[in-house]
Amino acid sequence: MTDLSRLIHPRSIALVGASDRTHSIGERTLTNLLDHSDFEGDIYLVNPTKTEMRGRRCWPSVASLPATPDVAVIVVPASGVLTVAEECAARGVPFAIVLTSGFGEAGEEGERAQVRLKEIAEAGGMRLYGPNCPGLTNVNHRLGLTFSPSFPHDLVKGPIGLATQGGGLGRNVMQAMDRGIGIGLWASTGNEVDLQVADFIHYMADAPDIKVIVTLLEGIKDGAKFVAAVNRAAANGKPVIALKVGKSEYGQKAAQSHTASLTGSAEVNSAVFRQCGVIEVDDIDELVDTAWLFARAEPPASEGVAIYTSSGGTAALTADAVGTAGLTLAQFTPHTRELLGALLPAYAALDNPVDTTAAVLSDAALIEKSLSAVAVDPHLGCVIVPIALDYGDTTIQLARTIIAAQKGCATPILPIWMSDRMGEGYRMLVENGFAPPRSVGKAVKAIQRWVEYGRWKRSPGAGAPMKTVAVLAPARATRSLSEAEAKRQLLAAGIDLLPHALAPTQEEAVAAADAMGYPVVAKIASEQIVHKSDIGGVKVGLQDADQLRHAWTDIMEAALRHRPDATLDGLLIEKMAPRGGLELMVGVTRDPVFGHVMTFGLGGIYVEILRDVTRRMLPLSAGEAAAMVREMRCFPLLDGARGRPPADLQALETLLLRISDFVMQNTDRIEEMDLNPVWIGARGEGVLPLDAVIIERVTEGARA
Amino acid sequence: MTDLSRLIHPRSIALVGASDRTHSIGERTLTNLLDHSDFEGDIYLVNPTKTEMRGRRCWPSVASLPATPDVAVIVVPASGVLTVAEECAARGVPFAIVLTSGFGEAGEEGERAQVRLKEIAEAGGMRLYGPNCPGLTNVNHRLGLTFSPSFPHDLVKGPIGLATQGGGLGRNVMQAMDRGIGIGLWASTGNEVDLQVADFIHYMADAPDIKVIVTLLEGIKDGAKFVAAVNRAAANGKPVIALKVGKSEYGQKAAQSHTASLTGSAEVNSAVFRQCGVIEVDDIDELVDTAWLFARAEPPASEGVAIYTSSGGTAALTADAVGTAGLTLAQFTPHTRELLGALLPAYAALDNPVDTTAAVLSDAALIEKSLSAVAVDPHLGCVIVPIALDYGDTTIQLARTIIAAQKGCATPILPIWMSDRMGEGYRMLVENGFAPPRSVGKAVKAIQRWVEYGRWKRSPGAGAPMKTVAVLAPARATRSLSEAEAKRQLLAAGIDLLPHALAPTQEEAVAAADAMGYPVVAKIASEQIVHKSDIGGVKVGLQDADQLRHAWTDIMEAALRHRPDATLDGLLIEKMAPRGGLELMVGVTRDPVFGHVMTFGLGGIYVEILRDVTRRMLPLSAGEAAAMVREMRCFPLLDGARGRPPADLQALETLLLRISDFVMQNTDRIEEMDLNPVWIGARGEGVLPLDAVIIERVTEGARA
Repeated sequence: MTDLSRLIHPRSIALVGASDRTHSIGERTLTNLLDHSDFEGDIYLVNPTKTEMRGRRCWPSVASLPATPDVAVIVVPASGVLTVAEECAARGVPFAIVLTSGFGEAGEEGERAQVRLKEIAEAGGMRLYGPNCPGLTNVNHRLGLTFSPSFPHDLVKGPIGLATQGGGLGRNVMQAMDRGIGIGLWASTGNEVDLQVADFIHYMADAPDIKVIVTLLEGIKDGAKFVAAVNRAAANGKPVIALKVGKSEYGQKAAQSHTASLTGSAEVNSAVFRQCGVIEVDDIDELVDTAWLFARAEPPASEGVAIYTSSGGTAALTADAVGTAGLTLAQFTPHTRELLGALLPAYAALDNPVDTTAAVLSDAALIEKSLSAVAVDPHLGCVIVPIALDYGDTTIQLARTIIAAQKGCATPILPIWMSDRMGEGYRMLVENGFAPPRSVGKAVKAIQRWVEYGRWKRSPGAGAPMKTVAVLAPARATRSLSEAEAKRQLLAAGIDLLPHALAPTQEEAVAAADAMGYPVVAKIASEQIVHKSDIGGVKVGLQDADQLRHAWTDIMEAALRHRPDATLDGLLIEKMAPRGGLELMVGVTRDPVFGHVMTFGLGGIYVEILRDVTRRMLPLSAGEAAAMVREMRCFPLLDGARGRPPADLQALETLLLRISDFVMQNTDRIEEMDLNPVWIGARGEGVLPLDAVIIERVTEGARA
Repeated sequence: MTDLSRLIHPRSIALVGASDRTHSIGERTLTNLLDHSDFEGDIYLVNPTKTEMRGRRCWPSVASLPATPDVAVIVVPASGVLTVAEECAARGVPFAIVLTSGFGEAGEEGERAQVRLKEIAEAGGMRLYGPNCPGLTNVNHRLGLTFSPSFPHDLVKGPIGLATQGGGLGRNVMQAMDRGIGIGLWASTGNEVDLQVADFIHYMADAPDIKVIVTLLEGIKDGAKFVAAVNRAAANGKPVIALKVGKSEYGQKAAQSHTASLTGSAEVNSAVFRQCGVIEVDDIDELVDTAWLFARAEPPASEGVAIYTSSGGTAALTADAVGTAGLTLAQFTPHTRELLGALLPAYAALDNPVDTTAAVLSDAALIEKSLSAVAVDPHLGCVIVPIALDYGDTTIQLARTIIAAQKGCATPILPIWMSDRMGEGYRMLVENGFAPPRSVGKAVKAIQRWVEYGRWKRSPGAGAPMKTVAVLAPARATRSLSEAEAKRQLLAAGIDLLPHALAPTQEEAVAAADAMGYPVVAKIASEQIVHKSDIGGVKVGLQDADQLRHAWTDIMEAALRHRPDATLDGLLIEKMAPRGGLELMVGVTRDPVFGHVMTFGLGGIYVEILRDVTRRMLPLSAGEAAAMVREMRCFPLLDGARGRPPADLQALETLLLRISDFVMQNTDRIEEMDLNPVWIGARGEGVLPLDAVIIERVTEGARA
């Protein structure tokens, strides 16, 4: 990826379309640059109708500038953008920021202009940011390449890097500065003609002033680039927290109409996020709650949570949220218990959750000592202090206590401000960097994500370089292999199957069955018939030659009746699966954003109803294969629950890895695979795909 | 239930323990009553050490009062409470409020005092509120029988009635007045020696100034009373919104240590709530968001939601939340579309979600007209206006527009304040009664609950009087009936079963099987052996007399080996279930709070893993039986999904109802039932419990 340092820390900037007409975009951008930024490099104002503006010289064109600027900020009207872009490219400007709207988002004409803009940039080797975006906001170095009048209001420096597409929601995150969070850099990439959110995630992964990366996505244009960027962040130990719009059809439709970009499948997106350690959140306030917890502290090895409060009901409510989130309440050390016992009254709850009772709330020294005693306990990862009420002075004192206790320990103390009354106590917590979440559930969710990321980070292979494969354009034509051919390819790929044989005649069928032993299954063999059962093309449990001969006649009749057009290759004869065992399924599809994705889960009649499936982008590592198997809700059934023998998990993981290898060796060819059902037996009995569908891409040559 | 009118609207009040010592409970209560209440009845101050206080006469005792007050508020120290209570009871005081702590929550001595307090009240026919509570706050009539210094700060009148146990969380809801919500009455019942939350729900169900009932529960003491109260509310068309702590083990433990009350099973609680139309929420902010939506408008018949915003990203985020919540985006009428087309620029999104784009945000008239056009569309139930940002004057204008548009229509307009910047625009919305939720997800959740309640209210039988059965004390001893006896009772209750016979000898077994026809199942018959499969006591698929004889020998050997102590009655011979069909389960347990509860769901090996079950308190109505069946996640499998024949739903519903009747006719006797598996065939093939366990209570007489 291109080094973006000169875009984010330019030595010189040209503002093309600088204006002094009040409220114009050119004027607002100029004001941000001259009055609200701390920029010490060269600024060139370009405006052909002026010679001077605010005491600075104006240049008529980019071509006329005395030097080539690192960045050209283009704010001329849409009709003039292409010409300016050409000029910039010709001059060798390395980075252009186009704030102007009226491109891809504005109908066909705009789309054509956008295509041309991209061509100009590519031809000139110029990297392009925008168009249709509010600009680039470098808070830590106080440089606003943006027309937004909000720029001077949202300048709390900090360790969070924010990369968004749209500007509205991005600004919402910036306004969380009023809750005390600090954001060092905000890139809002608009139509993403060239530079994408992923480019900025990649930049932030290496930027020394950014510790936590936050991103808001409506669509991912380049899956491989995104994966590379978040992988880089993981390798550098920086969490990436993402809100991806498009989890429902409504959201996908709205995002598409907003950004005209593919939103992709929400399930695949979420699976890739999990796979890459990206922390996915469901709402924009959760983005802020979660990011700030990461900014305050790395996820701890001790996952236990402590709750400290003076209200019994609040203690119970918070404990409940901790429990339903699957988190653990820490067990205090004997030393902590002793300290609390000595400090707090007899009727207080000393166990976690600690409920001091309201009676001692007025004794600040006691609160500070007891809260500190809890916070330094080595068995825990964080302390939640749910504040149900704003009780004026009492709450101010509590805030003061929290601030003091935090100074004495590294374990983060997380106050939750639950009340709609937001007085001085709230303000003090905000000013001291606590950015209190506003609800118990949301705070606990942030902790849950923090803890889960810690687990992911400690899991084998987390942050290791990931392979990705360039994504092909959608296939123009595909075809289904016959089951016999599909199984031949699977066998060649080292995948175990039941004995089976393609029998072109009835007598060859009987001979094959005699050789492999009864009972057998007989299935119609025809490339044109994929859903064999639906047309009566499958007979199971055939016990002898007689039954097999009958089956031959029945199946052939049914096939001729339902599909008189199909070429029938005979019957595929296969040994029946052993009794017992369970039915699973393994599928592979090609995602337009992330390429081949494997779906694995419960098979048979429950597949679609219970949707107990898990997904991974391919290729699969051994660790991921093991994780997939263990992620299924019905994993206990494979692991010996309900008196069942433990299933052959080793064979199952091997199967998943071999399918992954097979697909990767045929990445240009394979569009889709469906092994369903896959029979799994007890340990040592193996795993056997009983049916196999492979759909491959038909290349132009092959079609001719 | 007792009429509580005189407690909530007393004509006269005695304050026993009135004090002028600053910050004492007696002084704070006195101040609330004299300075901050609008009470025009008689006030009697009782304090044996004073003759006068704040210019009012003091009486030495309750006995010495010139008249019997409607309410005695008792604030004397714990050691004096019992004496005062005796005096009040002797004087015939109808209602006593005990604010003092130091009872059930404070160790064994306190518990003993609490038992005595209860006896005094019961013996004197005096109703008791408390002890260990902050008191009773009648906001709509401005009467504070409470020591809380917050009383004068939280006085926004309104249609919400609040009934809580603990005081802390209740006060949190009261502080939501700062967001503009109005709460007419707050009862905080503390240790609930006598009056419970349910009594106040019942009162509020009839109170003309209360429209929406909100309750916070840590434990329900009397299930039948609670059901009667919420049933009354439903009959009067008032929604009850509940937050019940104790959904996780942690929460249950913390609630128990706080209130020393049984929290009951969270699953049963939630099922009873659903059954009674109680709207259950998961967090305390959700309580407020949801209650206020109900206070603003009844759930509409048109469930469609409209989204109106000026930010494309926000539109997509909100549409996503609507979609994932299972809500519907309304389809605008052609008239609305026309209006919007005429008003908004070409590049705006006119379809729902409406995205005006930020370009027109400054045109207040246009925003008001277009928002109004949306809000009066007859196809929708509410309009969400997500406000992502506080943009100062622009946002003030938007707030003004929302206020104006709401005046012109009945459909509620629901602004969401998403930003942490809370300026003048926010304040205006608060002052005009919009109480904006603070996150998209939370707002949509409130709408979801509102819409679902509307559906429940329109469902047949909703709000009809519910039968409840007095809950028995836990059984001292129970015993399992033999399968043969259990099945005899089921048959007698009109429940279909497969042909079966108890065979005391091998030859009788063969004769029975010959008579019913093979294949058969053979199961050990012994009252002592409940888990028959675990000891090898079941053989299935026996095809002839020979196999049956072998099975006899094997089973008897296994039984003798594993349970040499058991009395063996022979084998239960039963015809095999037909092929095909699915396995379900029906169970009945006795809940300590709500009595008999039915659990119904998927049977076989998936029961415990997938937990696809639903529950109802018994007795069951026909409508509830039908609803239970349709609530299962795997219902599509019963309804003909995946090419399966539709199952015999009618027989299934009949089975559930007959089991309910059977339990109700034996309510004192039956402790538990477990029919698992229950075989269900295709339409007309019926439903057949294959195994049956009935556990009954052993009465003292029967044991002897």
